[in-house]
Amino acid sequence: MSDLMLIYGKNSVTEALEQGEREFNKILIADSAGHDEKIEYLKSLAKQCGVLYQFVKKDKLDKLTENARHQGVAALISPIKYEDLDSFIESNSGKNTSIILLDGIEDSHNLGAIIRSAVCAGVKGIIIPSRRGALVNSTVEKTSAGAINRISVIKVNSLVSAVQKLKEHNYWVIAADHNSKDNHFDIDYTDMNFVLVMGAEHAGISKSIMKLADYKVKIPMLTDFNSLNVSNAAAIILFESVRQFINKKRKNKDS
Amino acid sequence: MSDLMLIYGKNSVTEALEQGEREFNKILIADSAGHDEKIEYLKSLAKQCGVLYQFVKKDKLDKLTENARHQGVAALISPIKYEDLDSFIESNSGKNTSIILLDGIEDSHNLGAIIRSAVCAGVKGIIIPSRRGALVNSTVEKTSAGAINRISVIKVNSLVSAVQKLKEHNYWVIAADHNSKDNHFDIDYTDMNFVLVMGAEHAGISKSIMKLADYKVKIPMLTDFNSLNVSNAAAIILFESVRQFINKKRKNKDS
Repeated sequence: MSDLMLIYGKNSVTEALEQGEREFNKILIADSAGHDEKIEYLKSLAKQCGVLYQFVKKDKLDKLTENARHQGVAALISPIKYEDLDSFIESNSGKNTSIILLDGIEDSHNLGAIIRSAVCAGVKGIIIPSRRGALVNSTVEKTSAGAINRISVIKVNSLVSAVQKLKEHNYWVIAADHNSKDNHFDIDYTDMNFVLVMGAEHAGISKSIMKLADYKVKIPMLTDFNSLNVSNAAAIILFESVRQFINKKRKNKDS
Repeated sequence: MSDLMLIYGKNSVTEALEQGEREFNKILIADSAGHDEKIEYLKSLAKQCGVLYQFVKKDKLDKLTENARHQGVAALISPIKYEDLDSFIESNSGKNTSIILLDGIEDSHNLGAIIRSAVCAGVKGIIIPSRRGALVNSTVEKTSAGAINRISVIKVNSLVSAVQKLKEHNYWVIAADHNSKDNHFDIDYTDMNFVLVMGAEHAGISKSIMKLADYKVKIPMLTDFNSLNVSNAAAIILFESVRQFINKKRKNKDS
């Protein structure tokens, strides 16, 4: 293993082990972590997978993680493998594939939180720019609660080219835009492949990408305080699509 | 002014000034903050309100905020005033009052993010316990993007008593519970006062409160990765209620 990175948190480390895509150097468990269920499960999983774990002083984890909330567990592992957009499209050729594209999200916590919600909502991939945006680091791994191991992360040099390619492959482009007239719950997500585009915390979505949008949707508010956090906004839209899917399934069953 | 606290971030400071409920000692602006629109607006607002501002080196703000994302602005102001549940109930006696109750949320970022989404969704109050949970601090103020100034924050010694009192005043108790059989989008939020109860990041909602719930709702997932961040979960449920309100208004208009 050449590059190694540190991940921490019970869920992050457990998910990385369970999904089996990462190479482990070793797992570090704090002496003080105790014997709760999750730690015991992690240890037995590590044994099964042939991964070394060792006990260290909590101070050591504090230092290694720069006082992040490590929950008594960390691991040195290989970084995630970024995927290629072409191979993603090829291996997800069915109907109802959804993907999210982040245009310049700079905050690692937001990136991690979006990945976490996206996986819960059945999203298959996330596209991020190779510059001008957060990349996957220890904070993202932790904030995603390990969800990072269950989604294709696609890093591209040009977001515009990526959107164009998706359009060529019959993805509909849905841009979150609080200036839009249309509500996010007024489009039907259940009968298409779509890419949901979320813009940067302050600047929003760049013009060149906005031009390519098939739908622009806003999340209507009940007050004049119009300022959702970008990860919450993404969760609201993605779970509106989940609601529609579930309702459609029920209707099909009934009829 | 006896107690003073530090808040930071352009939105936090601007909102606190605009809402006019807090006493300002002074505003600190970094030399390097430049002359962007928001800073210029903040300065003119401060002048209007008779609040002193002074320029300092960015280093000073870095130190004061312990390297948080202060965006070049901080202020020394009086803490928020916690409200009393009785007076909240009295002054919000109309129909369709919604309130959120947090049972042991420990993470300040989550508390701030929930307040931000709650205000966007028209929620009027937030109940937090005086012990075993995050209280309002500088991080909460920043993460809420100033929304903290637009909601009643009610700190109580007993969450159970608070829920009982709300029930006596015709609030329906909706508990977020991922073990429930019922989906969050299958209840009608538009014809009642409700209190949405969200549980702690790991432990969930305590049994004594769960017993008082009129509805238990889950957010169904499209995968077996069942692990939403609590602020995203709150946003999803609250904005389902917003969707229902807006659709109901439209229907009433049409008929």
